[in-house]
Amino acid sequence: MEIPVLKNILEANDTIARMNRKTIINRGITMVNIIGSPGAGKSSLILKTVKELSSPTGVIEGDISSDIDARMMAENNIPVIQINTGGACHLDANMIRNALEAFSFSNGILFIENVGNLVCPAEFEVGEDFKVALCSVTEGDDKPYKYPLVFSKARVVILNKVDLLPYIDFDRKNFYQGVRALNPEAAVFEVSAKTGQGMREWSQWLDRYHKKGLS
Amino acid sequence: MEIPVLKNILEANDTIARMNRKTIINRGITMVNIIGSPGAGKSSLILKTVKELSSPTGVIEGDISSDIDARMMAENNIPVIQINTGGACHLDANMIRNALEAFSFSNGILFIENVGNLVCPAEFEVGEDFKVALCSVTEGDDKPYKYPLVFSKARVVILNKVDLLPYIDFDRKNFYQGVRALNPEAAVFEVSAKTGQGMREWSQWLDRYHKKGLS
Repeated sequence: MEIPVLKNILEANDTIARMNRKTIINRGITMVNIIGSPGAGKSSLILKTVKELSSPTGVIEGDISSDIDARMMAENNIPVIQINTGGACHLDANMIRNALEAFSFSNGILFIENVGNLVCPAEFEVGEDFKVALCSVTEGDDKPYKYPLVFSKARVVILNKVDLLPYIDFDRKNFYQGVRALNPEAAVFEVSAKTGQGMREWSQWLDRYHKKGLS
Repeated sequence: MEIPVLKNILEANDTIARMNRKTIINRGITMVNIIGSPGAGKSSLILKTVKELSSPTGVIEGDISSDIDARMMAENNIPVIQINTGGACHLDANMIRNALEAFSFSNGILFIENVGNLVCPAEFEVGEDFKVALCSVTEGDDKPYKYPLVFSKARVVILNKVDLLPYIDFDRKNFYQGVRALNPEAAVFEVSAKTGQGMREWSQWLDRYHKKGLS
């Protein structure tokens, strides 16, 4: 007798992701799932993006055990809810379901800051509008080749920390070739969340995406 | 009736890890499991360390699908074997068992370059002598607080890319406090695999560790 355990787990996740999808549509939310390595700059990107956006914003913070980033969001008066995964390396649809139930946010852009991990979070649909693959230039230009899943699933690719380009070796052409081979359609933005470079272009794109969804 | 599936998986992994341990002792190998985020500089660290070491060296390369790093090792005449995990976010003991069987390396230091991921690889013993937690200054000083498991399990913590410190905000005190709270005993090295800074100190420590194991 075959017992398809893993298959059932993934099906359960996708069932709940579809429920989340209905919830955010009903509540006028654009949900953006930000996936990147530890230190890629997920929190900094969210903080700077929020300042540029005209739409209301909220954040679901995913962390293994800390609440460092959630406190930073709260200090900046951004509505935030914390999910501690207790060791788990990604957020799943059920965690987001619980967060959506506990968090009264509606009519705006809701960022999910996933657990810092370029691999596992890409495997779990959570009902989001789209995924952002975030990586920084200091991680190197070969990331699309080594971690293809997140780059192939992302609607948006953001290359962060471009202010450090003068100090490192980064082959932009190699990076873009890797992204395009996996994902010809993704919108790609080069930004520095630190200096603000490129933040307006990405934020305006996101504002437009949200408002189109509302219309 | 309770079916403890996950427990059995971990027990199987630990059983094979113990077999690997016997194998490397018999073959005079010091096996060093290097764990770090995508782009932390695992490959660069190995390449530079090999040049400093007096002991013979080999590498087991763990990647989801590419062989970019393994080719780089081979071009530098370092004996190497590639493990492609086919999507899996970490190396487990059985993958290392297969690599040890297929790879004739003995009497030297064998580096495992784990899949780029600061979370999941820390959960899997593979029979190594010790784990290295590798992170770069560009990832930020809060990594020990956010990803505690790997820092608590590591015998060695390496802080890479210190050549970029002048261009970023990095609170060294906060980093060290985080490391020490989790792991008072770990050896900590600050290096730049790019400029070579600090590489000799770490490499000499590793040479000594290997030679002591042999005596």
